[in-house]
Amino acid sequence: MGYDEIMKLFLERGFLMPSCEIYSDALAGFWDYGPHGNTVKNRYVDLWRRELVRRDGMNEIDGSQVMSKKVFVASGHLESFVDPIVRCEKCGATHRADRLLQEATGKLVPERLPVEQLDQMILETGLKCPSCKGPLGKARRFNLMFRLGVGAADDDSYLRPETCQSIFVDFPRLFKVMRLKLPIGIAQFGKSFRNEIAPRQGVMRLREFYQAEIEVFFNPEKANNLDKYEELRDQTINLDLDGTLLQGVKCSEAFESKHVPNKLVAYYLALLHQFYDKAGLDMKRSRFRRLGGQEKAFYAEEAFDFEVETSLGWVELVACNYRTGYDLAAHAKVSGQDISVLDGDKKVVPHVFELSMGIDRSIYCIMEHAYAQEPERSVVKLRPDLAPITVGILPLVNKDGIPEFSKKIYNPLKTRYDVFYDESGSVGRRYRRLDEIGCPACITVDYQTLQDQTVTLRDRDSMKQIRIKSDQIETTLDKILRGEDLFKQ
Amino acid sequence: MGYDEIMKLFLERGFLMPSCEIYSDALAGFWDYGPHGNTVKNRYVDLWRRELVRRDGMNEIDGSQVMSKKVFVASGHLESFVDPIVRCEKCGATHRADRLLQEATGKLVPERLPVEQLDQMILETGLKCPSCKGPLGKARRFNLMFRLGVGAADDDSYLRPETCQSIFVDFPRLFKVMRLKLPIGIAQFGKSFRNEIAPRQGVMRLREFYQAEIEVFFNPEKANNLDKYEELRDQTINLDLDGTLLQGVKCSEAFESKHVPNKLVAYYLALLHQFYDKAGLDMKRSRFRRLGGQEKAFYAEEAFDFEVETSLGWVELVACNYRTGYDLAAHAKVSGQDISVLDGDKKVVPHVFELSMGIDRSIYCIMEHAYAQEPERSVVKLRPDLAPITVGILPLVNKDGIPEFSKKIYNPLKTRYDVFYDESGSVGRRYRRLDEIGCPACITVDYQTLQDQTVTLRDRDSMKQIRIKSDQIETTLDKILRGEDLFKQ
Repeated sequence: MGYDEIMKLFLERGFLMPSCEIYSDALAGFWDYGPHGNTVKNRYVDLWRRELVRRDGMNEIDGSQVMSKKVFVASGHLESFVDPIVRCEKCGATHRADRLLQEATGKLVPERLPVEQLDQMILETGLKCPSCKGPLGKARRFNLMFRLGVGAADDDSYLRPETCQSIFVDFPRLFKVMRLKLPIGIAQFGKSFRNEIAPRQGVMRLREFYQAEIEVFFNPEKANNLDKYEELRDQTINLDLDGTLLQGVKCSEAFESKHVPNKLVAYYLALLHQFYDKAGLDMKRSRFRRLGGQEKAFYAEEAFDFEVETSLGWVELVACNYRTGYDLAAHAKVSGQDISVLDGDKKVVPHVFELSMGIDRSIYCIMEHAYAQEPERSVVKLRPDLAPITVGILPLVNKDGIPEFSKKIYNPLKTRYDVFYDESGSVGRRYRRLDEIGCPACITVDYQTLQDQTVTLRDRDSMKQIRIKSDQIETTLDKILRGEDLFKQ
Repeated sequence: MGYDEIMKLFLERGFLMPSCEIYSDALAGFWDYGPHGNTVKNRYVDLWRRELVRRDGMNEIDGSQVMSKKVFVASGHLESFVDPIVRCEKCGATHRADRLLQEATGKLVPERLPVEQLDQMILETGLKCPSCKGPLGKARRFNLMFRLGVGAADDDSYLRPETCQSIFVDFPRLFKVMRLKLPIGIAQFGKSFRNEIAPRQGVMRLREFYQAEIEVFFNPEKANNLDKYEELRDQTINLDLDGTLLQGVKCSEAFESKHVPNKLVAYYLALLHQFYDKAGLDMKRSRFRRLGGQEKAFYAEEAFDFEVETSLGWVELVACNYRTGYDLAAHAKVSGQDISVLDGDKKVVPHVFELSMGIDRSIYCIMEHAYAQEPERSVVKLRPDLAPITVGILPLVNKDGIPEFSKKIYNPLKTRYDVFYDESGSVGRRYRRLDEIGCPACITVDYQTLQDQTVTLRDRDSMKQIRIKSDQIETTLDKILRGEDLFKQ
């Protein structure tokens, strides 16, 4: 299913809305989650917390989004977190120079090319403004961070462009007060901000977006000394090495063939693969793509993008960066603080391997993979514990005590589950509306209910129906949320 | 227990950290949640979601924090969301004029007084700069919103100073796509930002903070036409009316005596009281204080602050504002959109009653009320489902197969619960460390465990111990999380 169908569903069924859409000065790249989108997002983050953070014994923090200037002096973002832009000398429109060139030449143009090289390429290709065909000025670097002035003195500060900087800056105190030992993952879910010149494709490139980042701190001398590696050594992943796709490579093979730099990286790629499998992505359409020199972020020594195939092509969901000791050493230098820690009896500046996940686009891709257009309905086959509504309560008719019985079922459920009470339209139409937003179960209350206290439980995927006792609804919903298939026979 | 003890606990036990603390240019008013604080915050928000949002059948959204200029032209924030400040002509320090005067005179000085009046008061009281005793300049208004420039054109935008503006702006689409009917609550949890001149008292006045806001939209002609009011008519609340405290006023009395403007307001105050009771506040030290004319926010027709008594005095946790049709009418006017909706067959611009909750300070106050200094320990008697760690797993000794058995218990638990595995120090010391962060249950694995598979379950509050079968741990933890007292006999 395509991007347009999914975005239509998002807009018309309460998943997403453009921010400030009633206003003429609404800005591109900012979106609001509606009620259903908000629930899916929260449930997705819970899954991340359960299957990555807690499973691996990580610590999770939640840092301030506004950070002081020196953080970004140290991290390199003030100098290096820039996009090359060109301004049309005729109409004044601003464009990303690398993107224009990429579209014009069909070749990959890394965003980190020197501006002189970009100017040269613009000259050679005779590139003009795509809006008005006017001549383009010189390329220049545009910093993607949003600046804020704090207090009466208007002190420099910035909205963080990635959540991980909070983790690096908090690392010394965390290591001490949480009594941590290497290797240790520190995780964070939260907002990041990038002043993109040309946000595009709805939720795929936003100016304000959710990240879930994991920074694994380890002693670089012990990157191959990881007991839990053994648990995942047979997990397979798909690797794209400079255009060559290796399907179903075992974690241990990836390490032994030196496709990945060490056991620790192999382990976390395998763990991430398992996570997305549980989240319901079609893993046959996934790959870890090793990035070439000019594609990597400025802080990464080795990098793998976890990508998934969609109607928009391959989409990056997680940047897996081996950041070495770059960040901690830089913060130590600029702050003047000692950021090394004890590993056994030796002081080390830990190295960092990072899993930097885009939440909004992960949700988009999971929805697209789960969406099916069947002859008589649209249905989103989300895994039950990601669905925005767990169960619909549907009175067959609005008379004869059936709504009253339905409310008696609905009321105690509503604080424990995401329940939707729907009494309008035919039952068939109500099923369709709930199928379309991915609700795994519907309960219909009918005349038989009044006699024997049984209700109809209808399955989203198979559309099968069974009758259950009304006092069995909670245990049944718990089973459905745990992923048990009650409709097999 | 006092503020300093709580802040020490927060800093030294992984609840909170000043943002960017390793840097000399770290700015006041920005904090990071550490692992334990993050979990308590998430659990508190879950409770809010369960006991207010879902219980009342509300919709919850999650909007962009950056919003366009016209939103705040309409809302009045560009003009009216200002603090009166004065600058010292000698040392250049900037101060809040109202606060200085309040401290100097001991009298309430509303922040909305005209600047001329403030200048007059400064003159009359002979007020000088508190830092250097220099002369103060003229008072002026300082807007508390943070401005951002978006895109290459540097378009005006602002970090929202309150989450509710997203709700107002999204209301037309939400009402349609979610097929809503009045009265309906729309809720949001998220960050807001205020460029305070003098952030103070740690987490009590922040520049970046979490709010959970609820906006109840209703037909103003039907504010006394609310079935669910009957469910809470006997719930008691404490009302402070112009300095007179009425303890234990029934919701129905508050309405009938016209202390509150209508049944809808009475109902939501009672619901909020129940929520904080469940969250573990000592409700005898709470009150709804009706605000006088100059204390109210510029958009409020009637306002009650939910306040709680702490070592810092009375602290406002929730602003309950009857905003009338002010916001929707203003957005309709500035956007040119029709924002009225159908109620039955009549078009109305809904009125709004708001519960605007400060999350960070709610958590502080809950912690302070739960904190006890007992002769041989500090203990935080948080309700179990708000605790940062639900259960500690403690091997009695680190030999003889006891750590192995402990890990066998720990591993399957760790994805489902917040579990802490602790093997260092005496068991007594490990209990104390977990008491101090509010962990309700500890499980100790000892030699008897190896023989009969029972473990010791130790209760935080009573310090009693019982033995349970190790295969009963999950059901036991579920009971503890539901608030059952297993140690009564």
